[in-house]
Amino acid sequence: MTAPRTACTISVGDELLAGESLDTHGRTIAATLGARGCRVLGHRVVGDDVAAIAAAMREALADADLVIVTGGLGPTLDDVTREALAEVLEDPLVVDVEAVSTLEAWFAGRGRPMPESNRRQVMRPSSAHLLPNPHGTAPGIAASVGGVPIAVLPGPPREMRPMLDLVVETHLAAEPARPVVVVRAVGIGESDAGTRIAEFMRRDAPLPVATTVSDSIVSARIRGRDAGDADEVERLARAVEDAWAPFAFARGEGSLEAAVGSLLAGSGATIATAESCTGGLLAGALTAVPGSSAWFPGSVVTYANRRKVEDLGVSEIDLERDGAVSRSVAVAMAAGARARAGASIGVSTTGIAGPDGGTDAKPVGTVWIGIADDDGTDARCFRFPGERDTVRRRTVLAALQLVRLRLLGASEPLLWERASVS
Amino acid sequence: MTAPRTACTISVGDELLAGESLDTHGRTIAATLGARGCRVLGHRVVGDDVAAIAAAMREALADADLVIVTGGLGPTLDDVTREALAEVLEDPLVVDVEAVSTLEAWFAGRGRPMPESNRRQVMRPSSAHLLPNPHGTAPGIAASVGGVPIAVLPGPPREMRPMLDLVVETHLAAEPARPVVVVRAVGIGESDAGTRIAEFMRRDAPLPVATTVSDSIVSARIRGRDAGDADEVERLARAVEDAWAPFAFARGEGSLEAAVGSLLAGSGATIATAESCTGGLLAGALTAVPGSSAWFPGSVVTYANRRKVEDLGVSEIDLERDGAVSRSVAVAMAAGARARAGASIGVSTTGIAGPDGGTDAKPVGTVWIGIADDDGTDARCFRFPGERDTVRRRTVLAALQLVRLRLLGASEPLLWERASVS
Repeated sequence: MTAPRTACTISVGDELLAGESLDTHGRTIAATLGARGCRVLGHRVVGDDVAAIAAAMREALADADLVIVTGGLGPTLDDVTREALAEVLEDPLVVDVEAVSTLEAWFAGRGRPMPESNRRQVMRPSSAHLLPNPHGTAPGIAASVGGVPIAVLPGPPREMRPMLDLVVETHLAAEPARPVVVVRAVGIGESDAGTRIAEFMRRDAPLPVATTVSDSIVSARIRGRDAGDADEVERLARAVEDAWAPFAFARGEGSLEAAVGSLLAGSGATIATAESCTGGLLAGALTAVPGSSAWFPGSVVTYANRRKVEDLGVSEIDLERDGAVSRSVAVAMAAGARARAGASIGVSTTGIAGPDGGTDAKPVGTVWIGIADDDGTDARCFRFPGERDTVRRRTVLAALQLVRLRLLGASEPLLWERASVS
Repeated sequence: MTAPRTACTISVGDELLAGESLDTHGRTIAATLGARGCRVLGHRVVGDDVAAIAAAMREALADADLVIVTGGLGPTLDDVTREALAEVLEDPLVVDVEAVSTLEAWFAGRGRPMPESNRRQVMRPSSAHLLPNPHGTAPGIAASVGGVPIAVLPGPPREMRPMLDLVVETHLAAEPARPVVVVRAVGIGESDAGTRIAEFMRRDAPLPVATTVSDSIVSARIRGRDAGDADEVERLARAVEDAWAPFAFARGEGSLEAAVGSLLAGSGATIATAESCTGGLLAGALTAVPGSSAWFPGSVVTYANRRKVEDLGVSEIDLERDGAVSRSVAVAMAAGARARAGASIGVSTTGIAGPDGGTDAKPVGTVWIGIADDDGTDARCFRFPGERDTVRRRTVLAALQLVRLRLLGASEPLLWERASVS
């Protein structure tokens, strides 16, 4: 059996065509297959309709070497992808006896009887076989039409992904992975980032570097043509990291909070947070890192001024004179968080996330971030563009990057930072 | 001219099929058209290839009353959507003289001469006309094939959206909005949710109700065929809310934290949180609600046991005897958070989010959620499936739902709750 070189993908769901949910499986599957040299020729989104799903399957089977379908395997009557596959295969649907036992055990393990409606989920076209789902009740279905494999995977991403890996393992395991490195940075604008690496971005370069920006994180993608490009990809990745220093924090899926965690763990330091405008999201980001209990004892969220005074020892005089969104309060919050938890580093956020609360002098998006450690204290003022959620997310990223730079002994200003504000 | 009732959409771009960019236009356009009673029958993603784009256009034109294509209008040689449209129309490409002047003026206004490559952007099939682009250099193109209108819009979202509004204005302005209600619930499984409203989900019902689950939130979508269905949609939405009581918390985009916030604001109550495994995410969710400062004074994240003792007054004896993940500690944390901030309600989380720290008796996913208020204390034990991020997110949703139910005087067990654990 030769490995499939091309694929077509199909996402099923009325909610996708109604604009209520965003289809992300097309991208996930394309990236996964592409890394193994299997190119996606086309992607279709169809509704929960047997005829439409079957028609899309037939077209895809005619065009490509591999077809992957996601969604429509749930227990309810509007989930009809298995019926569409049966129609394409011209096979009757049968109950998979083994899978009934597995599913009954799954519910028993959760102390619940199996609802009758879930019985539909263990039906399959007679010539197909089921793919195990360790994370949910819907098994996937694998079949073959005229030698072209077709796999149907459940819609929930955490159930879909491991099953996609299984499909890749089955059909593409022998393909060497194409080398790809993605370098990620925070605190630098996309134009500046592009200018710094312009020579690597030329379209006529053997391996042109492409940049994208998403959620304030700038990424550079370096992709080899085949396994032989691994050294050149690595060389380019290092060149991008140098050009983006000190803002580049990770490769691939590595998060900024994980980078901060590694630095903290490596130096035996601990960190405590005091949050106002981010309301817990900074602590939430740090504790997303597995093992963070080694360097994160705890923190406070002080939304009300009274909590800033009582929990962190912020001076009522400073609050009265400078307001809660100020250098003095940011510094006192960071120092208070550090002292209270006995941590090496304290970091604080206080700002105006909106939609209300802005003034001419301190418009929505004005945020102070404070840091306190053995070397003293620092505070920086930012003016983040965007609405409430965006301002809060950008504040978390800036605070994490400021901690990272502090741990590295760097002090470059970040994107959206305002110089010489007091 | 009757208004189009159905549409097909096409997104063009190699980067979409390579998994490098996420296609969001399908959703945006579907939601926009759907609100005007024009249903999207299918969405296709194709690469920058004349034959593939033309084939997708032909299929879409055969299926629907309106076709909208995005992407592939840029100045570079890999942008070939206009060539594909010319092929479908069997028309030559001509330079639009008026548009040349507009484009030259656009560049002159930015103090730059027009690059020769941009001249391609003002070409159009001879029977088509251009759509103005106030935000960029690529005009859109509008044409008609056998009476079916087809519009090609540029890929960048801020250029695409205003042009989409223009297309809607042209073809769908007279259509009254179709009534749509989405009912959302947390704490109930999808199968149970489906069983409770099975009679409304029958495919042969005049307005069949469809359910989806995403990130532990179960949604039911009720969609009218036209404006005349508004009363029936409302009746069905109430029936679903009744069937899902007390778990249904909002309609449409309303969040669970906003629902909790409204109840708190309405009753003059305040809330404080004490978080271990959620590490700040529960406070982060509550403070995502604009105006939350009215009912959220502040909170603590106590990751280390010492912080639970010092910040919340948890007894060292309880911690020693029962462990940090226990009913006694959850109750003491909630009571401590409430007392410390002088809030009406305290809510706590303590659990094992993983990947490490699980035992046979308390595997990863074991979480206690505590509540304290004037009426006393309560604590519930959960066993959430999933990895670290998922366990944390599910804990936040369950904690919010428990607070909501407490405020409503309800006490139904939630999904994944374990009965009679001490």
